[in-house]
This record gives sequence, structure tokens and C-alpha cells, in this order.
Amino acid sequence: MRELLHSLIEKNKYWTQYGNVATYIPELSNSNPDALGICTMDIDGKIYCEGDYNTKFTIQSISKVASFMCALKDNDINKLYSKISCAPTSDGFNSIVNLETKNSHKPLNPMINSGAIATISMVYGLTANDKFNRIHEFIKEVTGNNNLKINYNVYQSEKNTGDRNRALAYFMKSTGIINEDVEDILDVYFKLCSLEVTCKDIAHMSLVLASDGILPNKKRLLSKHICKTVKAIMTTCGMYDGSGDFAVSVGIPAKSGVGGGIAAVVPKKMGIGVFGPALDKKGNSIGGIKLLEDLSERLDLSIF
Amino acid sequence: MRELLHSLIEKNKYWTQYGNVATYIPELSNSNPDALGICTMDIDGKIYCEGDYNTKFTIQSISKVASFMCALKDNDINKLYSKISCAPTSDGFNSIVNLETKNSHKPLNPMINSGAIATISMVYGLTANDKFNRIHEFIKEVTGNNNLKINYNVYQSEKNTGDRNRALAYFMKSTGIINEDVEDILDVYFKLCSLEVTCKDIAHMSLVLASDGILPNKKRLLSKHICKTVKAIMTTCGMYDGSGDFAVSVGIPAKSGVGGGIAAVVPKKMGIGVFGPALDKKGNSIGGIKLLEDLSERLDLSIF
Amino acid sequence: MRELLHSLIEKNKYWTQYGNVATYIPELSNSNPDALGICTMDIDGKIYCEGDYNTKFTIQSISKVASFMCALKDNDINKLYSKISCAPTSDGFNSIVNLETKNSHKPLNPMINSGAIATISMVYGLTANDKFNRIHEFIKEVTGNNNLKINYNVYQSEKNTGDRNRALAYFMKSTGIINEDVEDILDVYFKLCSLEVTCKDIAHMSLVLASDGILPNKKRLLSKHICKTVKAIMTTCGMYDGSGDFAVSVGIPAKSGVGGGIAAVVPKKMGIGVFGPALDKKGNSIGGIKLLEDLSERLDLSIF
Amino acid sequence: MRELLHSLIEKNKYWTQYGNVATYIPELSNSNPDALGICTMDIDGKIYCEGDYNTKFTIQSISKVASFMCALKDNDINKLYSKISCAPTSDGFNSIVNLETKNSHKPLNPMINSGAIATISMVYGLTANDKFNRIHEFIKEVTGNNNLKINYNVYQSEKNTGDRNRALAYFMKSTGIINEDVEDILDVYFKLCSLEVTCKDIAHMSLVLASDGILPNKKRLLSKHICKTVKAIMTTCGMYDGSGDFAVSVGIPAKSGVGGGIAAVVPKKMGIGVFGPALDKKGNSIGGIKLLEDLSERLDLSIF
Repeated sequence: MRELLHSLIEKNKYWTQYGNVATYIPELSNSNPDALGICTMDIDGKIYCEGDYNTKFTIQSISKVASFMCALKDNDINKLYSKISCAPTSDGFNSIVNLETKNSHKPLNPMINSGAIATISMVYGLTANDKFNRIHEFIKEVTGNNNLKINYNVYQSEKNTGDRNRALAYFMKSTGIINEDVEDILDVYFKLCSLEVTCKDIAHMSLVLASDGILPNKKRLLSKHICKTVKAIMTTCGMYDGSGDFAVSVGIPAKSGVGGGIAAVVPKKMGIGVFGPALDKKGNSIGGIKLLEDLSERLDLSIF
Repeated sequence: MRELLHSLIEKNKYWTQYGNVATYIPELSNSNPDALGICTMDIDGKIYCEGDYNTKFTIQSISKVASFMCALKDNDINKLYSKISCAPTSDGFNSIVNLETKNSHKPLNPMINSGAIATISMVYGLTANDKFNRIHEFIKEVTGNNNLKINYNVYQSEKNTGDRNRALAYFMKSTGIINEDVEDILDVYFKLCSLEVTCKDIAHMSLVLASDGILPNKKRLLSKHICKTVKAIMTTCGMYDGSGDFAVSVGIPAKSGVGGGIAAVVPKKMGIGVFGPALDKKGNSIGGIKLLEDLSERLDLSIF
Repeated sequence: MRELLHSLIEKNKYWTQYGNVATYIPELSNSNPDALGICTMDIDGKIYCEGDYNTKFTIQSISKVASFMCALKDNDINKLYSKISCAPTSDGFNSIVNLETKNSHKPLNPMINSGAIATISMVYGLTANDKFNRIHEFIKEVTGNNNLKINYNVYQSEKNTGDRNRALAYFMKSTGIINEDVEDILDVYFKLCSLEVTCKDIAHMSLVLASDGILPNKKRLLSKHICKTVKAIMTTCGMYDGSGDFAVSVGIPAKSGVGGGIAAVVPKKMGIGVFGPALDKKGNSIGGIKLLEDLSERLDLSIF
Repeated sequence: MRELLHSLIEKNKYWTQYGNVATYIPELSNSNPDALGICTMDIDGKIYCEGDYNTKFTIQSISKVASFMCALKDNDINKLYSKISCAPTSDGFNSIVNLETKNSHKPLNPMINSGAIATISMVYGLTANDKFNRIHEFIKEVTGNNNLKINYNVYQSEKNTGDRNRALAYFMKSTGIINEDVEDILDVYFKLCSLEVTCKDIAHMSLVLASDGILPNKKRLLSKHICKTVKAIMTTCGMYDGSGDFAVSVGIPAKSGVGGGIAAVVPKKMGIGVFGPALDKKGNSIGGIKLLEDLSERLDLSIF
């Protein structure tokens, strides 16, 4: 397995030259575009790490999965659906069009920016800070990493350049999807995006979903039903407007972030964390997708 | 003329029952829905006022015309066009869709909310306050009313409920159309919308445009070229997505506001100010349009 | 005047190099891209022609004006509006999006392809052929040219490459806007687009509109009301998604065609026909617009 | 199992009252709205049928799966992707908007009408009739039913009322996605939609996909790779704009048709055919979805 991972990383580094690191945040543009790393944790406890698995990167949109898990814990599903749909979209992750044109003005799903902001709004907490703490604690637990910290440079950058997200949030405030102070709720969003993780952290989170909610220490963190919901939405919406292609080529529920991470969940088998900051045009790790495609085929991991 | 105006007001009060006063701002919802008034000022100095011509109302979107005149005075036209198009639209006045979908991300025209915010950003002034003062002074001059004041209740309401406008402004900030602090620029926008006017004020402003920029005291306030540009855009875009219908039924360059006002410009002949707070579904004074339709036909005022 | 026209043509030939002749039809791509011609007919009977005023070209979308005049003669206005709006649009002339997304599925206006097809459907005539004959006879009368003939090569080309128009027509058939056999109604549309005219013909048609419906021989062809409606819609919609810009820069009701023609109507003064087959990106004669812009300024023709 | 199926059908008949049979085709509106039936075939050969499993209904959009399998057999995958994307959409099954607005003008996926028409165009065959015969033979094989016949009343109805599909096809012809005669290619489409099947037939087809391409007689009909591609696209796109919800609530790759059928594939386990002609607002069998939801939960069939 170690050899397999090693060879697949070597092979797929080739693709990183065709991608670009995110540049909208100066901090992100400093990433090494050639980096590629992976960590797999199977349900029996075996862990394999190869390549740049130890490099820290910001979790970015992968935090949307964690926020969504919290919101599912905290809310009756119907209440949640009154604010957020679970419809895949062929538009980009920060698109605002559908908030205006679809009748209900609901964000299409919790994996795009608008939906993630609405998701955070649904998490328990009297103040925005309470909501952040709640999700932060949850992410520590689901990643098994008690030292998960904010990268304050990235956080500050996100905050400074987050006007498109402000547009999304104010639009949703104007239609009653969210009620909080917009800067407060976005502050939570930007902080969550700025949490620093490694491949191991997101592999751990993926493993919990693969195990239908059971932590490696056998403690139940989430219900099976929540986990199935999350994996379904990762499959249809997790790779932004590349979700359809990814389902065909890889066939594993996954969520990407512009920091270069991908969390991939092989139900009942394995959690995978991948890191490769060179992104394709849709904002997904270009080397990471190719690596997962090979791994899926070699180990027959597709859910289909 | 007096009799004509009187009879047309009596006749067209009938239509006010089919409209509704704006309710998104509590202050606006207090307007008397039956009100209908008119003031005409012809280029030879004759002034006629009938109906509720003396009622104060907030200028709302009619201020967009004044902001646009200021921006045209302050900027090379090509610089202005690099930020704002002059394309009519069949979408509503607060639509955000085209900011995302049209290639340049420019607001379609200066008569819709997004375009007006961008327009204000183009007016000279180091600070937002400077911009407000500049446009405020200009409106005093163009309306011939030195006492033009903000209705602070409306202003506060606009500010409190202006989240859709915040969405528009942050979107434009994210695409580089505007660079100012969003709350600062919106503060100018909300203040301008909240200026209290009467039919006479907007008739005066319309008269200046009808005279190609000459004030009644013969002083030139604007170039002929600016005035033609403004009247052209009023014709294609001034009545929101009702502009096409209004051109057919009335045939006069005009701009409406959700306060119930309509400024109508008969080139080389007459400035008209109308007030009727009951609005049709597109946000235009329902009685005001009907009144102008009759007046246009009776006096052969159509530009076509 | 003759000298003025001559000098303006010489000056504005410069712009033709920045445009391209239409190429979607082989026949159209054979046009001489440098050509530029004009004919003006004023209401007192004076006629001036300069440049390539004698070159034949196909009328193309300018026929939409004639079809619309016929439909207005034949129908109660409310019946017409139940099928076609008169709303300007910022989308291209062959856009299908709004037929799906706007609630009523009506074409936005009679000056774009979908609207023109619906317009033809509203003209009297038991068969499609009857409709064609009716409009053809009307165009002969309004252009004062009894010899108006179809260019059968262009017609055949239009028919062979008209799939986008078929899409528009079948969409409208599916929503009940039109009921005829689609190929039959399109056959009329393609024939009308393929009528060969010169600048003089379209200047004559424009003169009739400028005269509010009176032919040079003093016979009334159209009511004043119809003429005002047509001029209003030419102003807001006649130059496709360039209508807003044209209103600002030229300020004259006009309708363009991809054959390179522009019909421009100066109310109560003059009919103008322009020909220049090099088109800008929106499908309007690039030299023709510049020529009209200069002429409008020099003779103060703007309606604003 | 038989009892389980029986009880779930009894329970979920309740929901049929909240749906409506398709009415756009007179023939479809004659279906019994209360009907609900199921057939399951597991990979070990066990077959269970309950309720209205023996009622014939037209396959409608479920034929899109079969056409897609044929196209995948006949084409290099990259050639196929040059004409059809595999992106899920939140628009309805007959939407035309994305054909215009998305840059490549490609249909978003092969499970919506536009994509299915393009798919048929990619299947081998010199003539449209050849293509029909090829897909028809394939469907006979994949359903294990050699008697599969066209319902000519439905076929004729589809043909008579298929103007929206004509609009889609002509649009794609105008952009070069398809090259065939439109009526010819639509004739294949309408014929395929009109094939009469029972729950057993579509359960059989689903079983072949569940078995990664192996027929019950152990003959390989399709490659494993094609089957995985098909199941992935069924998951993200198979239930139209209800695909996201279905993935969450049921978690099984599936394809619905407006005839009331649903083909559902439990990888490596089971093929399921469901029939219930009362449809929800998105065009999916309302009782069928509820039945599958219960079945998925009771037998733990979710792929997530």
C-alpha cells in the first residue's frame, strides 16, 4: 500500500503543472504548486501517509462539511431544508444568480459558499462566537486533532477580500434566509476556512463519515442517518461544478477546498485526505483528483 | 391648462386603487394611496400645479438622474462607461443576476440600483460625505429648491432594510466596479433617496433637462450633450423594466421613484413633476403613468 | 447637404475596417465591407443620396419594422400584447433564454427574432403565404418601391442555416405563442429577410414613420398612433442590445439589419436609409452608426 | 421479502394522491394514478414482484440510460464528452437556458432531454432508423425482454406534442452538437420513449448495471467501466432536478421516467424496477420515491 501510494504520487505530480494555486488570497498564493500528499485511514485502523502529507494547509471549503454536520445535529431536517436545498448546481461555488432566480431564494446546497453561510447560521449558538466555538470544537473532535488553529494571516486575508461572500450574505439577509449580523456570521465563516490542517486531519474526518459516525475509539459522534446525508451531498455537490465529472472518474463522496485539500470518504472502508494546492479551473486540486482517480481504480473504491 | 390638469387628475385617480404604496419601508407605507398631483413648467416660464402637488415625498430613484448628471459633469464619458453601461434591461431594479452573468460585470445602466451606486462612486469627492454634499448641492440647484432636506425617518428605514443594496454594492466591490467602503457609499445612496421633494421640485429639474441645461434664470448648469445623454437613458431605462411600455404609451423621457414621483422631460417644451404613491408591480406610480399618458396625448407631447 | 453627406461618408468609411460582414450566410459574406451609403428624404420632399446608396442589399431585420406595422394594423393592441411584450433587452437578437425564464414566455419585443416570428404570426392571412403576400405588399407601399424582390440565394441560405430561428419558433409553439406550422411561418420570415432594397427604399419607409403615417402622395397609410408605437419600440429595442448606446450617441429611432442597413426616423423631419455591411459585435452597421452619429449632431436631429 | 414489499406498497400508496399523472400526452393521462408496483432482482437470481408489477407503461426517460450505454459502447469517451457534459443541474428536464448561457453550448448531462437527444446522435448508425434499431436491440438485451414494443398511440402523441424537444434539437443543431435531420433524430427519441415495459424489464436492466455489465446468463454485455460511469451519472443527474434530494433520501443510483417508472441500481446487490404513474412536481413517481426510500432503509441499500 505504501508503495502504491508512493508511486501514484510520483506519477500524478505530473498534473500539478497544469493547475494554479489560488491567488485571490496572497497567503494562498505562497503555496508550493508541486506539492502532493495523501493520508489514508482504513476502518480497521491502518494508516498510510505519503508525499507532502505533513504540510499544513488551510481547510477552506472542507470546513463546509463540518458545519453541515453540526447543523444536522442541531436541527430538525425539515427546518434545515426550509433554509437550504440539497440540489447540485452547474454554476460556480460563489455564484449569486440562483439566489435571485430560483423561487424560494434558498441556497442550492450547503457545499457552495451561500449554502455554507446559511448552514453556519443554523448551528446552535447565541452569538456568532458561540457558533464558531461549537463548530471548532466539533472539527477538533471529528479530525481527532485537538490543536487545530486558525492561520491568522489567511483569516485576515479572507476577511479583507471577502466582498463576494458579503454580497451572498447580504442577499440572503434581504430574503430572510439568515438573520444575523452579516459581518459576525462571515467572521465565523472566514475563521472556519482558515483552520490549518494536514492530510491526516481530513483523512480522520473522512474516516468518521466512512464509519457512519463512529470515532476510532468506538464512540459515536454522529448518527448513521446524518452521515448518509452528508455523503450523499458530498457526492452530488462536493466538488463544486466538477461534482458530476468527479463522480464519473473517481466515484467517491468527497469535498474539496481551495487550499488544495480533498476529503474523500469510502463508505464502510476508508477515510482519505489529499493535499495538492495546484487547482483546476473549477477550484479543485488538479493533482489530487488524478491521484484519487488512480487510487479508486487500483483499490476498486468506487461506490458505484 | 389648469382645467385640463384638474380633469385629468380627477379622471386618473381611478387607477390608484389598482396600485399599492411601497411597503418595504414603514415610512413609505404611510403615504396616502389616493394622492395624485402634478406640476408642469414650460420653457417660457408658465407653471401649472394641480392635485396633491404640494405634498412632500421622498425623491427615491429620481435622485439617480441627478447623481448621473453629476457623474457626467465630473468624468470623461469613456471613464464612466468603463464602470457603467447604458443598456436597458428587462429585469427588476434591484436585480443582481446581470452583475454576475454579463461578461464585464458592469451594472447595465445608471437608472437601476446597482448602476446608481456605481454612479455615486464616480462623482467627485474625497470622502463619501463630499460626494453626498456635491450631489445634494447639485440637486438644490437643479430643482431650484434651496431647502431640500433629508427625511431622517425614511433615511433610517432605508439604511435598516437596505440589505439587497448591500449585496449589490459588495458584489461590485468584489469585481472592482467600486472601491469605496460599502457602508459609506450606501450611506450617500440612502440619503439621496430620502431627500424630500414636491412635484414642483422635480418639474424644475425636468425643465432644466428640457432646456438642454439652462436654468430658468438663463444660467447654464449642464452642457447640451450631457442633457441629451440623460434624456436618452431616461427613455430607455428610466421606468425600470416598464420603460418599453412607457415609451409606447407616453413617449416622454422620464424617471420614476418608489416614493411615487415621476420626473418627465418634454425636450424643448416642458418639465413635468408627478406624484402618486400607489405603485404598479414594476414600482412605478400607477396613477402617475396614466395621468402622463393622457397629458401626452392631449398636448401631443410624445417625442416620437 | 450633399457636401455634408459626402464628407461624412468619406470620414466614417474609416470605421468599416473595425467591423465584419455577416458570415453566417455565405451570400452575405460576399458584401463589400468598405461600402457606405446614405439616402435622406425630408418631409418637404427633398432627397439626398451619397456613397453606395444604389447598392442592393437584403433588408434582413429591418423587415421586422414592417411586419410589426402590419400586425398593429391588423390587431387590437391588447391582443398583440398578449403574445409579444415591448420590453428592451440586454441579450442578443437570437437569444432564447427569456422565452423560458420570464413568466409569460412571451418574446420580449417585436424587434428581436423571436418577437418578429410571433409578429408575423399575428398578421392577417389564412395561410403563411397570405401573410407573406400581405406584408410584401405593405413593404412595397411603405418603401414606394413596386419592384421589391426576394434574393433567392440569400433566402435559400437563410432557410438552410436557420436552425436557431427554428429553435425559437418551436419553443414558442410549445408555449402557445404561435400556432402555425413552424416551417411555414419561418418561410415567411426568411423571405421577408431576403427582400432586396436600397438606401432609398428604407429612407422612404422611415419618412412614412416620420410623417406619422402619411405617404409622400399625402395618402394615409398608417395611423399616427401606430407610428408613435413603432418609433417608441425602435428607440428602445431597434438596435438589438446596442439600443441603449445608440439612443445616447445618435438619439434617433432606428432599426438595423445584418445586411448592413439602418432605417432611421427623425420624427416630423426626415427619413434616413443607411447601408454599410461591416457590422459591430452586436450586429449593427459599424460605419452606419458613426455616420448617423455625426449627422445627428451636425443637423441637430436628436429627439432628446 | 415478499411481505416486506407488499407492506411497503400498501403503506406508500398513500402518497399517490399527492401526485399527478403526466397530462402533456393524452395517452399518459389515462394511467391509473393509484397504481404502484415493484420488481426486485438480486444478483443471486432471486426475483420478487408485488403490486402493479405487471402493468405495462412507457419507458420514457428511462430509455435515456439505455441510449447512454449504447453511446458509451460506440464512442471514445472523450469524443462523447466533446458533445455532452456530465454536470448535474438544478433546472428542469426540458430546460433550454443552459444551451445558450454555458460557454460550450453542450447539454449539461445525458439524463435531461437535450442531452439524451445528443446521446442518440452519438450512437452508431448510418441512418436514424439504424440508430433506433441499435438501441432497440440493446434495450431488448439489457431488459431480457425480446418482445419490447412501441406503444404507437404514445409515440404519435409524443411526436405531435414534441415542440419543446424540437426547440432543444434545433438549438443543438445550430451550435453543431448534432448534425442529423432534426425530425429524424427526434423520431428515434420519441420511439424510444414510447417503448412499453413492466417493472420486471427495468429491474432486469438495473440488475445488469448492478452486476457491472454481466447478464444473468453470465454473458458480459457492458464493461465495468461503462457501468460505473452510468451509475455515477444516474446518481448525480438521474432524477432530474430532484437528484440531490433523492441521493439524500434514498441513496441509490436511479433513473425516472414520466411514465411513472424508476430504474434503481444497488451496486453489486440488486436491480429494482418501480412503477407509479402519479408524479411529483419534478416529474418523478411520487409513490415510487417513497417506496424506494423505505426499501433502502429497511434493507440498508444506500451506497453512502
